[in-house]
Amino acid sequence: MAKILRINMTDRNSYWEDVPEKYKHLGGRGLTSSILCDEVDPLCHPLGPNNKIIFAPGIVTGTSAASSGRISVGAKSPLTGGIKEANAGTAWSQSLAKLGIKAVVVDGSPNNDNWWGILINKDGATFFAVDEYAGMGLYQAYAKLFEHYGKKVNIMGIGIAGEQKMALAGVCFNDIDNRPSRYAARGGLGAVLGSKRLKFIVVDDTDAPGVAINNKEIFKAGCKKLNEALLNHDVTKPGGGLNSFGTAILVNILNEAGGLPTRNFREGRFEGASKISGETMAELCEKRGGVGTMGHACHPGCIIKCSNVIPKTNGDELVSSLEYETAWALGANCCIDDLDTIGRLTRICNDLGIDTIETGVTLGVSMEAGLAEFGDGEKAIALLEQIRQGTALGRILGNGAAATAKMFGVVRCPTVKGQAMPAYDPRAIKGIGITYAISTMGADHTAGYTIASEILGVGGKVDQLDIDKVELVRNFHYTTAFIDTAGHCLFIALAILDITSGIEGMVEECNGVLGTNWKIEDIARIGKEIIDKEHAFNTAAGFNTADDRLPEFMKYEKLPPHNVVWDVPDKSLDAVFAQ
Amino acid sequence: MAKILRINMTDRNSYWEDVPEKYKHLGGRGLTSSILCDEVDPLCHPLGPNNKIIFAPGIVTGTSAASSGRISVGAKSPLTGGIKEANAGTAWSQSLAKLGIKAVVVDGSPNNDNWWGILINKDGATFFAVDEYAGMGLYQAYAKLFEHYGKKVNIMGIGIAGEQKMALAGVCFNDIDNRPSRYAARGGLGAVLGSKRLKFIVVDDTDAPGVAINNKEIFKAGCKKLNEALLNHDVTKPGGGLNSFGTAILVNILNEAGGLPTRNFREGRFEGASKISGETMAELCEKRGGVGTMGHACHPGCIIKCSNVIPKTNGDELVSSLEYETAWALGANCCIDDLDTIGRLTRICNDLGIDTIETGVTLGVSMEAGLAEFGDGEKAIALLEQIRQGTALGRILGNGAAATAKMFGVVRCPTVKGQAMPAYDPRAIKGIGITYAISTMGADHTAGYTIASEILGVGGKVDQLDIDKVELVRNFHYTTAFIDTAGHCLFIALAILDITSGIEGMVEECNGVLGTNWKIEDIARIGKEIIDKEHAFNTAAGFNTADDRLPEFMKYEKLPPHNVVWDVPDKSLDAVFAQ
Repeated sequence: MAKILRINMTDRNSYWEDVPEKYKHLGGRGLTSSILCDEVDPLCHPLGPNNKIIFAPGIVTGTSAASSGRISVGAKSPLTGGIKEANAGTAWSQSLAKLGIKAVVVDGSPNNDNWWGILINKDGATFFAVDEYAGMGLYQAYAKLFEHYGKKVNIMGIGIAGEQKMALAGVCFNDIDNRPSRYAARGGLGAVLGSKRLKFIVVDDTDAPGVAINNKEIFKAGCKKLNEALLNHDVTKPGGGLNSFGTAILVNILNEAGGLPTRNFREGRFEGASKISGETMAELCEKRGGVGTMGHACHPGCIIKCSNVIPKTNGDELVSSLEYETAWALGANCCIDDLDTIGRLTRICNDLGIDTIETGVTLGVSMEAGLAEFGDGEKAIALLEQIRQGTALGRILGNGAAATAKMFGVVRCPTVKGQAMPAYDPRAIKGIGITYAISTMGADHTAGYTIASEILGVGGKVDQLDIDKVELVRNFHYTTAFIDTAGHCLFIALAILDITSGIEGMVEECNGVLGTNWKIEDIARIGKEIIDKEHAFNTAAGFNTADDRLPEFMKYEKLPPHNVVWDVPDKSLDAVFAQ
Repeated sequence: MAKILRINMTDRNSYWEDVPEKYKHLGGRGLTSSILCDEVDPLCHPLGPNNKIIFAPGIVTGTSAASSGRISVGAKSPLTGGIKEANAGTAWSQSLAKLGIKAVVVDGSPNNDNWWGILINKDGATFFAVDEYAGMGLYQAYAKLFEHYGKKVNIMGIGIAGEQKMALAGVCFNDIDNRPSRYAARGGLGAVLGSKRLKFIVVDDTDAPGVAINNKEIFKAGCKKLNEALLNHDVTKPGGGLNSFGTAILVNILNEAGGLPTRNFREGRFEGASKISGETMAELCEKRGGVGTMGHACHPGCIIKCSNVIPKTNGDELVSSLEYETAWALGANCCIDDLDTIGRLTRICNDLGIDTIETGVTLGVSMEAGLAEFGDGEKAIALLEQIRQGTALGRILGNGAAATAKMFGVVRCPTVKGQAMPAYDPRAIKGIGITYAISTMGADHTAGYTIASEILGVGGKVDQLDIDKVELVRNFHYTTAFIDTAGHCLFIALAILDITSGIEGMVEECNGVLGTNWKIEDIARIGKEIIDKEHAFNTAAGFNTADDRLPEFMKYEKLPPHNVVWDVPDKSLDAVFAQ
């Protein structure tokens, strides 16, 4: 029977706990957020001993359900000061689930300066000293750990930024080829691990019992439906948009839509967009050859395979993976139009263990502050090296866009609840702006990815400039909270919003694992329950509706080419979760 | 008839406005907070063009009412993100009032990088370029301005920190000898002026009409009563505690009480306290002679005269004034026990234009972060010079204690609503802790100075460790809001809480000026109206009751010598302003 693994870092012990009844039908985000609400004081210091950090595979993670290798990581966020769930696709999560672990809950913090790793296998958790890894880049560290523990383990780690308790530190997981490249990136969760002096968790699933499936028949039927949806939708199918060009297929699309934030959110169209697009990445792979490839999977069992390996001119690996958000953040937002430079910047982010979105927006703000010229990639690289060195400037940048703006008195700071906006300008695409404003997570596109309808036309096309999107946003948020709980990659939504049998499949997979009898109507109910809890946490942490607002400059600075300001009424924002 | 002077910095113009009926009976804090609530979007960026900064003399300021030369400065605070009023005692305010100016309201911000000064006299406001003053210390700048405009003008200014829009930048006013030393220090209001590129306001009251007094007889009777109270109370009378030893008379008292925060709020008693006490300052003045003096007034017409001039060993001026909060912040809190070093640090603060409380707590946090050893005065001086130079480290420190703690991952950060706690540890003195928690201003002792009753026994002595102080705190807050509106120095409370005729005197002075018919009972009503407005602003700016809390570490770290934690129930905090 699945268990919860409790780890206390104050005196370094661990124990197994039965899963309480109330958590039995939860996984992923639903579980991390529920445990946080039940056990963590919303007013605790995020870097103090009373915060907890929780790792939870989704409900169907570790099974053969397609594209379901997600790990949810939750804690009170050092970046936003509110609740946080960030997730990533990685075999680490699948291994944890196969070991019968519903969640790993880490609390406490030691009174000394040593660094620790934990090995989790079928026998439990073992601590090991990792002081020798402190200050080391994650590429070197992961190589060394895989050499020691064997290629078949999976590794969670924090980098130099997390060690320094910086708010843009993410939580790193290995990809399918054991690179340190799959991130639960947002909200500074790496800093929480840093505050607990926990640098690595190695998971070895040798002789793991596997995920218990309550009703194999229903589960199998569900898998089949979802697989068919993913295999048949133009966006998700093999040879489809995501598979051929990666997530960066969005660069040209968003640029065309006038919603690609450029020059620190001054403009919505980037003159160099085509040079950093997914199409150009695919061309590069083709032309340069070597290890270059599109259609790479982030974890075993993914049908969509939207990751990639970008080659250098000589065919050697430049970086993997180069995602849309990353290419935008380190590219268009900083007016850097050279994929090789963006690749180097991305590799540094992976090596330091930092969120590429927050990093790119931080660089944009630092350019606004005059620390570098827009477009100066070499200076951007030099700025990131300040983080590695832990200089005063590095500590500013390492604490993210809002901190950098505050330290340098920059007013044009595109953050909500202290978290940097992703790759869609809310003035030009209103629904995603509502998502940024009202998400429990701070500015987070994945919390309610209305881009699907507003730009991609999935689930019916709506006008990007229409401000009347309360219901659309609400539906996206509730559905997303469910998907994040089920353990699926959010991109399945791009197929199942058009192919209803796919939604049925997702629900049936969950029913198969859990023995529940959920219907499609339960998706919104379950999603709402999760978001209601997150809201309660945030309210108790000090948020009110005034925190559900976009930064003031967006109300008076017009965004070209549409020349629009942010004009969604506050009452619409407050209406999303009012019912 | 009194007017409001409007100044717009976007296109540099100014105009006079009649005082609207609703503001006619207001002054000082009551007026700055009312205008902010009426005119400023609580969600505006504090450093953006839509914030306003307001200067308002008190109701009786500029008259012969004793100890009434206060100027209130209000804006949305870059430090707390909420409403802010900070006040100072200075002839600048008296001159403004004599010119018939109820308030100066500054809005907008220019689109270029020039710096501006404004000369206000009976004819209105004139702009003058002050680019040559940028980057100059305030001692030099004030000397130069007084040379240019004559010794009889009065000057408001911001220093290098304000130019850099740092959140610990205060607003400087000249003292009675034209030193740049009287500060509306708290909440980063100097940064708001920096964002508007307004460096100085010179006030020349030549041929000013003086403050219109509605009923001279009542006014005179009121003055007499208040004077008598001040002249007869042991704390405020000539030769009394404040006059003889300055505010730093509190050092030994608070140390004895175990409530003098030491080593960044780790302990409540400082081994070097006696070396930095008011008594030692008086001894120094006596022994070293020269310009040294206690019993110095910050503005003409003060009866209490609690300022001082501290001499160097050779009798030359070290600094003026050295207050309790400053001696504590730069002294005990950093474990610096040498008055000469503290004097040098204070002089640097005055020169840079920064809040000594926020600075001292920031230094304490930076020592906690390992940037200097506790007690290392020379290193502390070097750290302040980083602010002057505008280095990355200087920008961190220049943004205050909470920013410094965040950048360096320090958990022991003694702030509320982002503002540093003053010189009384709330664990050892519960009432002042409630004041810190629930003040609309962030941690601010002057918002409800319960120390009067808890430590000094003024208005009846209460036990400092008693947690049942809701009513006490509420009364202090409402009364204070009235005093801040009348334009009196808060220290009159130390006399009138014991001598009721003094309270009557204060009210009658106001009635005399305004032609009102207020009674003593109106004090709390008027105070409440002001605080209710401030609350509404803060709620709209994003605060809720969770922001009315002390930092978590105070709940689990016991403070020696009483070995107590913060244990006032949240419901008591919420009860203060609930009715």
